[in-house]
Amino acid sequence: MHFTSERRLEDGVLEREFTLGEIPGILWTPDSSPAPLILLGHPGGLARMYPRLSARARHSAAQGYATATLELPGSGERPRSDAAEQARADLQRAVRAGKPVDDGIVERLVLPLVEAAVPEWQEALDALLALPGIRGPVGYSGGVIGIGLRLAVVEPRVAAAVLFAGSYVPRRMFEEARRVTIPLLVLLQWDDENNDRQLALDLFDAFGSKEKTLHANMGGHTGVPGFEGDDVNRFFARHLE
Amino acid sequence: MHFTSERRLEDGVLEREFTLGEIPGILWTPDSSPAPLILLGHPGGLARMYPRLSARARHSAAQGYATATLELPGSGERPRSDAAEQARADLQRAVRAGKPVDDGIVERLVLPLVEAAVPEWQEALDALLALPGIRGPVGYSGGVIGIGLRLAVVEPRVAAAVLFAGSYVPRRMFEEARRVTIPLLVLLQWDDENNDRQLALDLFDAFGSKEKTLHANMGGHTGVPGFEGDDVNRFFARHLE
Repeated sequence: MHFTSERRLEDGVLEREFTLGEIPGILWTPDSSPAPLILLGHPGGLARMYPRLSARARHSAAQGYATATLELPGSGERPRSDAAEQARADLQRAVRAGKPVDDGIVERLVLPLVEAAVPEWQEALDALLALPGIRGPVGYSGGVIGIGLRLAVVEPRVAAAVLFAGSYVPRRMFEEARRVTIPLLVLLQWDDENNDRQLALDLFDAFGSKEKTLHANMGGHTGVPGFEGDDVNRFFARHLE
Repeated sequence: MHFTSERRLEDGVLEREFTLGEIPGILWTPDSSPAPLILLGHPGGLARMYPRLSARARHSAAQGYATATLELPGSGERPRSDAAEQARADLQRAVRAGKPVDDGIVERLVLPLVEAAVPEWQEALDALLALPGIRGPVGYSGGVIGIGLRLAVVEPRVAAAVLFAGSYVPRRMFEEARRVTIPLLVLLQWDDENNDRQLALDLFDAFGSKEKTLHANMGGHTGVPGFEGDDVNRFFARHLE
């Protein structure tokens, strides 16, 4: 992990860009230390997602959390995968047509992404937790929900997760969902144009965690109300201390 | 409204029992004044429900809210209705048998209760808001969800409601739900033995409010996690100030 830039934001948060091998990422740290770490999930495209990610990072830093994120395979400046691009186009075509999305398309899009991304996030965890002032247990917060799901199953350092149900999950991952046991907060936008409501409810039902809470709000994919940011902080305060 | 008893609880909350005509009720007030009022809904049987109601009242008082509740028609010491008793028995038999509950049974149980209870709660509001130190706008918090739904439609002094989806609602009330416009927080116990999950999700979908949030948690009817009490307080803080 190499830091490539460093700047102090207005509210005192230190923002550092880094590369992990070829993969770009960003780390935000608060003044207080040691800070528990939250991994910020997103749909890919760090530059495009930066405004929302940095807002979440600063909101978390105000409560004493460090946050970090990584570019996803096939997004931003990273090499594209023809198969993933094809699957994404197929999914978007089905969604635009208002048709039920074939699970085969979802599998082609999500499974390779999860397989490729999760080991990278685990490698990032190794590097981040070796930095001074950052500590576990770790939280995961955001999408892609399939990545968060897989991390919750395979990565014991992740102790609690906020999963944004704003993307499709192949039915094949429901078996995996039953093996999740960490506390979960699942955020669902009731009229999310990027997801299927019933699929999200079925996935919430499938998670094996004894403590799991669903927060559903009105509006589309990007309309999560501001007060949910406070709820996310309180959720992590209960589970990462 | 006549006060029949008065005592100061350990945490400084003033608890007063009253009668409104023949109907018993309880009012809890914090030290601070004027306090916004929250009506505490419940399934009937004030004596049986007292431990949970007073806990909710004290939690609300700690945030500066007055709370009040009324006995429901046909519950506690109030005269029974044969028709309601029969409908309740029919509903319990259907639930025990694990069968889908016929909407006709739900109508026979819930509609007369809503019709009888809501004018009483409105009359209580007249009396409560005339007391010194208590002010609107008013919140409603709890079950019976049909009563909260009707109050949200017909009572303009109720400005926000936390509805506990722990009881059946006849499908005929869904039209009414579309006319609700106040902010709502709907609490759902995912495995509530007293309700049907899909009915609760359909009802949440039907509410006409632009701001509505669903919080679903694991466990049965009485298993609402303690942290939801804080969420309820924060919801009212956003809407009753």
